[in-house]
Amino acid sequence: MEFSAQQLAEVLNGKIEGNPDAMVSRLSKIEEGGEGSLSFLANPAYEKHIYSTTASIVIVSDDFKPTGDISATLLRVPDAYGAFAQLLEMYNQLRGNKTGKEEPSYVAESAQLPEEYYLAAFASIGEHSSIGEGTKIYGHVYIGDNVQVGKNCIFYAGVKIYHDCVIGDNVTVHAGTVIGSDGFGFAPNSENSYDKVPQIGNVIIEDHVEIGANTSIDRATLGSTIIRKGVKLDNLIQIAHNVEIGENTVIAAQTGVAGSTKIGKNCMIGGQVGIVGHLQIGDGVKIAAQSGIGKNLKDNAVVQGSPAFEYVDYNKSYAMFRRLPDMAKDIHQIKKNLES
Amino acid sequence: MEFSAQQLAEVLNGKIEGNPDAMVSRLSKIEEGGEGSLSFLANPAYEKHIYSTTASIVIVSDDFKPTGDISATLLRVPDAYGAFAQLLEMYNQLRGNKTGKEEPSYVAESAQLPEEYYLAAFASIGEHSSIGEGTKIYGHVYIGDNVQVGKNCIFYAGVKIYHDCVIGDNVTVHAGTVIGSDGFGFAPNSENSYDKVPQIGNVIIEDHVEIGANTSIDRATLGSTIIRKGVKLDNLIQIAHNVEIGENTVIAAQTGVAGSTKIGKNCMIGGQVGIVGHLQIGDGVKIAAQSGIGKNLKDNAVVQGSPAFEYVDYNKSYAMFRRLPDMAKDIHQIKKNLES
Amino acid sequence: MEFSAQQLAEVLNGKIEGNPDAMVSRLSKIEEGGEGSLSFLANPAYEKHIYSTTASIVIVSDDFKPTGDISATLLRVPDAYGAFAQLLEMYNQLRGNKTGKEEPSYVAESAQLPEEYYLAAFASIGEHSSIGEGTKIYGHVYIGDNVQVGKNCIFYAGVKIYHDCVIGDNVTVHAGTVIGSDGFGFAPNSENSYDKVPQIGNVIIEDHVEIGANTSIDRATLGSTIIRKGVKLDNLIQIAHNVEIGENTVIAAQTGVAGSTKIGKNCMIGGQVGIVGHLQIGDGVKIAAQSGIGKNLKDNAVVQGSPAFEYVDYNKSYAMFRRLPDMAKDIHQIKKNLES
Repeated sequence: MEFSAQQLAEVLNGKIEGNPDAMVSRLSKIEEGGEGSLSFLANPAYEKHIYSTTASIVIVSDDFKPTGDISATLLRVPDAYGAFAQLLEMYNQLRGNKTGKEEPSYVAESAQLPEEYYLAAFASIGEHSSIGEGTKIYGHVYIGDNVQVGKNCIFYAGVKIYHDCVIGDNVTVHAGTVIGSDGFGFAPNSENSYDKVPQIGNVIIEDHVEIGANTSIDRATLGSTIIRKGVKLDNLIQIAHNVEIGENTVIAAQTGVAGSTKIGKNCMIGGQVGIVGHLQIGDGVKIAAQSGIGKNLKDNAVVQGSPAFEYVDYNKSYAMFRRLPDMAKDIHQIKKNLES
Repeated sequence: MEFSAQQLAEVLNGKIEGNPDAMVSRLSKIEEGGEGSLSFLANPAYEKHIYSTTASIVIVSDDFKPTGDISATLLRVPDAYGAFAQLLEMYNQLRGNKTGKEEPSYVAESAQLPEEYYLAAFASIGEHSSIGEGTKIYGHVYIGDNVQVGKNCIFYAGVKIYHDCVIGDNVTVHAGTVIGSDGFGFAPNSENSYDKVPQIGNVIIEDHVEIGANTSIDRATLGSTIIRKGVKLDNLIQIAHNVEIGENTVIAAQTGVAGSTKIGKNCMIGGQVGIVGHLQIGDGVKIAAQSGIGKNLKDNAVVQGSPAFEYVDYNKSYAMFRRLPDMAKDIHQIKKNLES
Repeated sequence: MEFSAQQLAEVLNGKIEGNPDAMVSRLSKIEEGGEGSLSFLANPAYEKHIYSTTASIVIVSDDFKPTGDISATLLRVPDAYGAFAQLLEMYNQLRGNKTGKEEPSYVAESAQLPEEYYLAAFASIGEHSSIGEGTKIYGHVYIGDNVQVGKNCIFYAGVKIYHDCVIGDNVTVHAGTVIGSDGFGFAPNSENSYDKVPQIGNVIIEDHVEIGANTSIDRATLGSTIIRKGVKLDNLIQIAHNVEIGENTVIAAQTGVAGSTKIGKNCMIGGQVGIVGHLQIGDGVKIAAQSGIGKNLKDNAVVQGSPAFEYVDYNKSYAMFRRLPDMAKDIHQIKKNLES
């Protein structure tokens, strides 16, 4: 997809300063630019870059007054940021407008497809599963038996959803993520080995959830592992059986939550955090990256450390940790002085 | 699958108290329940929930004497827990009774299939590979060339097994897990870059191993990476080249084991643990979550920390770490007193 | 593939001592050996193993003089290590010589394939994508729309590459890895939930990069996430949007790099390291495993800890951390002495 300055000016109702035949095929930051790229200038702090950018076209606001030479073709609009956002939205819609059924794909006889959907080559849908209107299913997605999927979901390539799981509307799941694998439940037996505890629950993902790539969400032993409305999970996260994550909580990459822990609403949890099982984490909790949570946390707690405690206290202790060799010398000197 | 109280009573040889036509389609915890769910009461500590549960049917033991009103239909049996476990087993067998070959699937000409098996749509088996009796292979599983798979294994959707690997009997592998990828071996060269060290060994997984979702087990540089009988690995675990994990050792999610380390039998290793390469970890070792292991560990060691040391000592040191600002104030005060 | 001592002697121009009909079908370490395996002795430190090895054939150098009985058939060559490396190379070429197009595979009409390539069953290539000469694409690989792939790449089973990404020459990517998933960008809105920030950039992977299994590399919000020439990434690594990793930097498993951080050339980063966003990490930096990086690092910095500081200082502080209970006792005693 390539566009001329002229075409963009028509779409955005803008005025061209420069070459109306300048062509662009991609979007870029103004400081990166590059031949064939389209950028924008909205924040005055970035104005310096417009004099050196190699972008072919830059969208600027009507009131922008250059103070030097500019090699890019300018496109003047009332609101540069708004116009760029509008193009970006159009670009994304063009990208994501896939529809129809590619072959070979696999749809079990008892599965129900909606009127409008996208099902890519090598996608597979099991018995008694149902897909909502407008949902897009990319290549190599596996949807097991008896899975309910809502409207306007996007499952990117290679997502795997086990039997009996329930997915709400407007849920986006990125490539390689697994939903509904067995919880890690084994009971020690008399032969010094382990018997598997059957994992017969499911996973429920509510509306407007987005999940990153290569994340794993285990099904409940009994009942449901629940990801509430508006939750955002990053890549490579581990959610164990029977965990519940409250509305609009955000969790960064590589964090793990052990079995049966309940996390509240509107929490912000950093990357590589570990949370042990059977805990209650309150609403509005903030957890610093790499922390280890071994106890319940009250609403609005802010913690760090492994095991974690209050954020400010952790940082005071850690500042002292860095000075420990000096403290040890002080103690040694005091003892010496006292002895003599 | 929907069942009436009447049908369940026949299967379990139970007596109905309430509506014989009450219908259930899923299992739940008694405290969660819900219309259409079947639950059980075995532990007296949970008795209070039977008076408020919304489950449609609850299995109870013959000797249970209610002390309040119960809305659910009761099903009396000699052993409530045993009866529920029996249903659960039946439910799982119904779920897992897939057999036959879905199309399109890919089986190389020289591959050997047993008499009974399940091969889902888009599963693929390479040249000279063989599959044991009763093994179930879900959608999008990739089995490379010259792979030996034993009896009664289950490979869930999207498992990838590279060439030359050997899998025992009764091995379960969850979705997205990779077995046999190249070890991370690179030798620095004179141009300040790296030459790849060919990775020509394999991975051997012994009987009764279960592996979670999105885990990676690298092939050996030479020889074998070995996962011994009865080992249980959780999700998102990294096992590097030439590692060996002893019988019945259990490892929680997101832990990583670096190259050539040997781990003993019956160990319990927490989540997000890192173990460096070329170590010997004894039998019966316990490692707390998020620990970093940099030295060999003797049999039955119990450790925590990064780097880890003895568990009790770590916790004593960490308790003092929390009090470090106070200790620093004490030292400051002592110095001041001594100076004056 | 099975070879006799006689066949190997011809290939390597070697002399047989023992049974010319001894057969081998795999390579092993001399201390592991096993019936049917081929090994070598080059390092004198390993000589003791040749008297006990169960390998069927051992390659030795012309000048090797046994001091005991050896059951294996010997194959004498001028340079045992060189001969073994030569066989290893041949073995790998035999393994990796797949060519042609297996069916069913999916190639969009507008996609461009080279003259020589391997495309396995269930691999899929999107619209306007192009593949370079000699590239091998294993089963269940998904290549989205408008992806450019260079020459002599290897994508193992189940690799997923989103639209618009650019992959150089001689790039190897292991199974399950995701390239180009959306960056984790969400803006809080007035309803206490989040709006998605469109992620319209791409990922650029330069030449001679190798990436392990189940790793995730997010596309840029705008512009490109860039993995420079010669970089080696291990398994289960998280690379966030707009990150840039300099030439020949090596990163071990389960490490995560947050958004917009730039890492220099020739760095060595341990496993399970976390690096926060928007940092500048210099060239030649070394980061110990499990460290947490919260600040910019200068060229050649060597750091450890969470948060990390200078490696030597961290280890001094940590040595004192282990002695903290004793220090606390000392302070207590001093206070007591001063009071009395």
